Amino acid sequence: VRCAVPILFTLVVIILNPDITLSQDNNMLLSSRAEQLVQTALRDQKGYFWLKELCAIGPRLSGSQNSLQAIAWAEKTMRHSGWDRVWLQQVMVPNWKRGLREQAMISRSSFFLKKQLAIAALGGSVGTSAAGICASVIEVKSLAEIDSLKEKAKGKIIFLNRSFDRSKFNPNDSYGGAVDQRTRGAARAGRVGAVAVLVRSVTSKYDNAPHTGVMYYEENGTRIPAATVGQIDADFLSSALLQEPNLELTLRLSCKINPDTISYNVIGEIAGSEFPEEIIVVGGHFDSWDLGCGAHDDGGGCIQAMEVLDLFRRLAIKPKRTIRCVLFMDEEQHQTGAERYIAWCDSAGQKHLAAMESDRGVLTPRGFNVDADSLVLIKIQSWQKILEPTGIDWIRAGGSGADVGKIKGAKALLGYVPDSQRYYDFHHSANDVFEAVHPRELELGTAAMAMLVFLLSEEGL
Amino acid sequence: VRCAVPILFTLVVIILNPDITLSQDNNMLLSSRAEQLVQTALRDQKGYFWLKELCAIGPRLSGSQNSLQAIAWAEKTMRHSGWDRVWLQQVMVPNWKRGLREQAMISRSSFFLKKQLAIAALGGSVGTSAAGICASVIEVKSLAEIDSLKEKAKGKIIFLNRSFDRSKFNPNDSYGGAVDQRTRGAARAGRVGAVAVLVRSVTSKYDNAPHTGVMYYEENGTRIPAATVGQIDADFLSSALLQEPNLELTLRLSCKINPDTISYNVIGEIAGSEFPEEIIVVGGHFDSWDLGCGAHDDGGGCIQAMEVLDLFRRLAIKPKRTIRCVLFMDEEQHQTGAERYIAWCDSAGQKHLAAMESDRGVLTPRGFNVDADSLVLIKIQSWQKILEPTGIDWIRAGGSGADVGKIKGAKALLGYVPDSQRYYDFHHSANDVFEAVHPRELELGTAAMAMLVFLLSEEGL
Repeated sequence: VRCAVPILFTLVVIILNPDITLSQDNNMLLSSRAEQLVQTALRDQKGYFWLKELCAIGPRLSGSQNSLQAIAWAEKTMRHSGWDRVWLQQVMVPNWKRGLREQAMISRSSFFLKKQLAIAALGGSVGTSAAGICASVIEVKSLAEIDSLKEKAKGKIIFLNRSFDRSKFNPNDSYGGAVDQRTRGAARAGRVGAVAVLVRSVTSKYDNAPHTGVMYYEENGTRIPAATVGQIDADFLSSALLQEPNLELTLRLSCKINPDTISYNVIGEIAGSEFPEEIIVVGGHFDSWDLGCGAHDDGGGCIQAMEVLDLFRRLAIKPKRTIRCVLFMDEEQHQTGAERYIAWCDSAGQKHLAAMESDRGVLTPRGFNVDADSLVLIKIQSWQKILEPTGIDWIRAGGSGADVGKIKGAKALLGYVPDSQRYYDFHHSANDVFEAVHPRELELGTAAMAMLVFLLSEEGL
Repeated sequence: VRCAVPILFTLVVIILNPDITLSQDNNMLLSSRAEQLVQTALRDQKGYFWLKELCAIGPRLSGSQNSLQAIAWAEKTMRHSGWDRVWLQQVMVPNWKRGLREQAMISRSSFFLKKQLAIAALGGSVGTSAAGICASVIEVKSLAEIDSLKEKAKGKIIFLNRSFDRSKFNPNDSYGGAVDQRTRGAARAGRVGAVAVLVRSVTSKYDNAPHTGVMYYEENGTRIPAATVGQIDADFLSSALLQEPNLELTLRLSCKINPDTISYNVIGEIAGSEFPEEIIVVGGHFDSWDLGCGAHDDGGGCIQAMEVLDLFRRLAIKPKRTIRCVLFMDEEQHQTGAERYIAWCDSAGQKHLAAMESDRGVLTPRGFNVDADSLVLIKIQSWQKILEPTGIDWIRAGGSGADVGKIKGAKALLGYVPDSQRYYDFHHSANDVFEAVHPRELELGTAAMAMLVFLLSEEGL
């Protein structure tokens, strides 16, 4: 009967805090509101068509021309939706650019000569000379193994080939268990005198699409070029090295780190009718990687945030509190957009009740993560039943997201959590296109987010 | 505080029934068992490769040559997996066959002459003469509308064009709200003298794939040919009829109802070590429609059932109760396979503890439906936490499935419930192929089913 203890505790909390429960009548009203949001989102599929327009612009790498076009599109679309206020917030962002030259070829070998590997430069990498870097290759499985190479690494290309562990239930854990190779591999290999790194793509799908993503050099560390290689070619290279350990690879990258450039967060809001100074942020990040078009990561999340406010307008819902949609620039590299937004809020005395992020793909809804104190968590959890018609099966303590997680003053930071099983198939690769998004999955997520935003706006925290 | 009542009730039930809760130590053992099942299923992906083999045989329409090949494959695969007993159970099944001639063409029109519509005969339909049926078309939205046509229907092709209501949260409800057109349209149109029916495909995806499925004539009723038309062409036909109400369509179908033929349920089991006479069935239906290859419906479900037993073997789990895998033939038309199985069980005095079915696609896990009395339901619900690592977020009262639902003597009938948002995109169409199955979604479902079967086997009911 040990399980009786948490139930008793919950019971005591509920009885002692009548405020945190809702009356049955109110519950029925709220449930019909949830159903209305689901029906409207699924019927109109407005966000899905918005996402199609957005993806037609192309990928939205921070600092790129496309990203500015997309910003203009978002501003225009928000204005057209008829909110109370829409504005751009200027922010300096990194301006790394992939080059046209991007090649890894086996250039010395008895068996595999001229074999091309499917690669993509990692975000933030320096390029090579036009002639490229020609070197033999050492395969490793960890950063520690790089350290232990010492002298042997000198002049070599280090090939980081630890797998995405597909046996884990949560692909986020598998990703977390492999991604250090991508983010830190070049810095660590640079320390021991390697000339470049190739990193096995961090993805759950066994195909040959390179999955890019950010990498970081150490301050004052040696900066060596870094690229990722598709899983099929990573396996090819690994077995080729077994057969012929001295084969040489030529790596050519014309990517370039340009000076930081001007970009914008896109912000729009519907003012609260009773407590306009209590702000509820709903957002995602508007930049993407430059392969695919960032449909799941995070175009879809931004569209969901925009459609939350659009649903309020379509259904003539007047929120008691201010609902603000924030599309953050530059989440993928340095989160300068989120930092800029926070700095402005602090200086302008903006007060957040809650902030919600959608940045885990736009797959079928599962739950919400809540980063808040226990009483706030219990209050939000008491709404779970009302959210069920939108596909939300649980509300748990957990992290919100890279951007809204920085809004420390809010009473609750919320992360929308869709099913994650397919997410890394698309993530940071040419697989992340509009066609990979299912309209029902996108729209149900929108309805779930809209309903939780509505509850926050009506009930407060 | 109204919500306190169900919590109190649960509490009282739990306190009064110490048997139905598990000790914390046992819970930890069981949780690590669940994790082991998840890891093994996701790592090996054995079921996924089985499904590839199965789909390579082709679709498994009841009575078809392919279905017999698939039966032989399943028997061989079960034997190879090393269970205690594998056998085929003979059953007579319907033997409807699609013909090579399957055409709907606009044959009289000022604007749309010779336009071909994407169609497929419905399962069980009679064919037309080689020359086909040429007639004008009346569009309706319901069976009642057919009845009200009376004399006007004579000699006409009735076009049933009510939409799949995409605004509902649960696509099963949308399907249920449209499928009477497919199952009963021809019978009702035959009553009022129509010569054929065309039915809008019942699917959640807006494309032009015809989605077939069973249709039933009335005993001694007029039997007229019935075909389904892809959604895009259904919309085309509807607007063409607005422009030109007198256009004529020629329908040619060479499908044929052949006499019932011999087929088999495929059955295999691992005998229980303590209570071998208490049987736990896990199964799906092995027949499919003849478009696509029945990967989701229900090849994947059958593979999951087979892999449950294979996982027990791979992990050297000796179940206390007998675990029996049943692949039922002919669910799609007359459920003769399930009836044959039950009849045999009754005559042989077989006693079922529980029976579980997977026939809702092999998408990401959500929960289990339980058809049982309240105390059994509460006992199974008390295992939910243990099942969570397999992706199971809830256990609810609900229907099991068309086949195991017939095993009335079991203490619990269970339906595995994966996420349903994408299911009808594939259902009964050429979209239902191996490539539409995600290995992680399939394998997590297998692990969830295996864990619940394990709990039933260890704990009883």
